[in-house]
Amino acid sequence: MVELDFSRSGGLIPAIAQDAATGEILMLAWIDEAAFRETLATGFATYYSRSRRKLWRKGEESGCRQKIVEIRVDCDSDSVIYRVEQLGGAACHTGHRSCFYRRVTPDGSLEETAAPVFDPAQVYDRRKDGQK
Amino acid sequence: MVELDFSRSGGLIPAIAQDAATGEILMLAWIDEAAFRETLATGFATYYSRSRRKLWRKGEESGCRQKIVEIRVDCDSDSVIYRVEQLGGAACHTGHRSCFYRRVTPDGSLEETAAPVFDPAQVYDRRKDGQK
Repeated sequence: MVELDFSRSGGLIPAIAQDAATGEILMLAWIDEAAFRETLATGFATYYSRSRRKLWRKGEESGCRQKIVEIRVDCDSDSVIYRVEQLGGAACHTGHRSCFYRRVTPDGSLEETAAPVFDPAQVYDRRKDGQK
Repeated sequence: MVELDFSRSGGLIPAIAQDAATGEILMLAWIDEAAFRETLATGFATYYSRSRRKLWRKGEESGCRQKIVEIRVDCDSDSVIYRVEQLGGAACHTGHRSCFYRRVTPDGSLEETAAPVFDPAQVYDRRKDGQK
């Protein structure tokens, strides 16, 4: 079985969720060994929520689950890509499709690159889902 | 000026390098405030090497530098994407174009998805560059 190296970051490593069809990076979150095993077992992206300090079954409340298409592992086995089909239209708790919806402008400020695809207040309670 | 939140991971946050033209994820490494400022100032991806505990000007020895096309910041300002033009053909110290050159197979093992694009022994001393 695939073994990841959780030793260098306090038991957590980064997991990048990437749209398997378009290559768009949807979010970056964290996984521990249990979250990774659950992802393998269920075929849906599972993370570890640092704020809630527990397993985070992404989309459990909002419906914005991420169906695993493929998992990639990096050269040091200390980060992974979840290549996914994003259900529910958006990955981000702000309602944007991607959490990376802001870019650095030439003058060093931030600007939005895309509008939200839904109103998060209509979709979920921010305290329960969508928080890394 | 853009401010990132380095407080939750011991002063380091993840930076994803993504091919700006194709969307391929090339690597994940770490940045501190100084690495981010140097990236903004120089227009080339700079990281913080956890193994060497110092600023890592990616490609300084190998020539495999990463020219910044755009920087994206996530909703919590605690991870970034460097959208880059990868110089020298490859991001990974193994000689593969991407560090994420292995995928998890249905039986839970790892298999390579691509061959190296160069022999790393011909390009750089692994001790000096390409180590996260």
